[in-house]
Amino acid sequence: MDIKRIGRNPATDPSRSRGSQISVHNGTVYFAATPDRPFDPGASVTVQTQQMLKRVDERLALAGSDKSRILAAHLMISDMRHFAEMNAVWDAWVDQDSPPVRACGACDLGSPDLKVEVIITAAVK
Amino acid sequence: MDIKRIGRNPATDPSRSRGSQISVHNGTVYFAATPDRPFDPGASVTVQTQQMLKRVDERLALAGSDKSRILAAHLMISDMRHFAEMNAVWDAWVDQDSPPVRACGACDLGSPDLKVEVIITAAVK
Amino acid sequence: MDIKRIGRNPATDPSRSRGSQISVHNGTVYFAATPDRPFDPGASVTVQTQQMLKRVDERLALAGSDKSRILAAHLMISDMRHFAEMNAVWDAWVDQDSPPVRACGACDLGSPDLKVEVIITAAVK
Repeated sequence: MDIKRIGRNPATDPSRSRGSQISVHNGTVYFAATPDRPFDPGASVTVQTQQMLKRVDERLALAGSDKSRILAAHLMISDMRHFAEMNAVWDAWVDQDSPPVRACGACDLGSPDLKVEVIITAAVK
Repeated sequence: MDIKRIGRNPATDPSRSRGSQISVHNGTVYFAATPDRPFDPGASVTVQTQQMLKRVDERLALAGSDKSRILAAHLMISDMRHFAEMNAVWDAWVDQDSPPVRACGACDLGSPDLKVEVIITAAVK
Repeated sequence: MDIKRIGRNPATDPSRSRGSQISVHNGTVYFAATPDRPFDPGASVTVQTQQMLKRVDERLALAGSDKSRILAAHLMISDMRHFAEMNAVWDAWVDQDSPPVRACGACDLGSPDLKVEVIITAAVK
């Protein structure tokens, strides 16, 4: 079974790679998504979550999937005080007929300006 | 390959869904489990872990699996001071002939009353 | 589809098991990796990350995979101040032609002496 890689995240040395943006294997899609880079510390949790979920939609489309086929979403937020605000955007976005399982923890993320990140496992169509 | 969803977690607006309780796809089961809701801040780590693992057993059964078929368990606890107490319950529960891989980190969880949560990936029988 | 377990992590009572070191199912490999035990608080983030990635290579080999076939890597570091130092070791190690997707959060880990841990999902060859 082959692995398909889509997109590339640069290393600190931009001539090198730190990771792929999407991995696909055996009918399953793996990726993480953040808000738009550079992260805007002035962007609200609402705006950062909207940007992140737009990227989730885009990456699912690139991998031949869509939000009705997300299997699991592992959310990470920088402060649990953001939980309700993030959830409001999630609740409006998530597919009502076929939502994924979900977990969320609060931890420091890769930039102090980053408020929300998600790790997605999805099924190809 | 079809996706099977089992159970539903309500959104803040209870007429909407925030997520499914279980996703099954390609012979693999995905879910997260917490102690009983509403979370009881007076319940010890032992009690909360017992409730959580009872729910793991229940969800595995609903999905056509059992604890001997868990592939990976990602534990999240609210404070690393709970680690030994959570582990004692885990060690007594986990299948001795076919235990999963495991990782654990400490982070704030979705309620200040929630002390332990687990993200499970398992194989259908 | 059968599950293959490789290796064993002992429970607090060393006659019992807390988990397996590697699970393999349906062409997919699951494991977590830490630096060498006992964790050395005097070891730099660089050294702990090198030890951890050596263990990743070893476990992938045991499972019939290699680092070009990692699908997703979920890194956990004990303090986001370690991020750049961990990344420098990662960037030098990761397969440049076929890197995984990656996410990283900072949280307390299972020992105060443990600075970095990774949860790996990979494809068997």
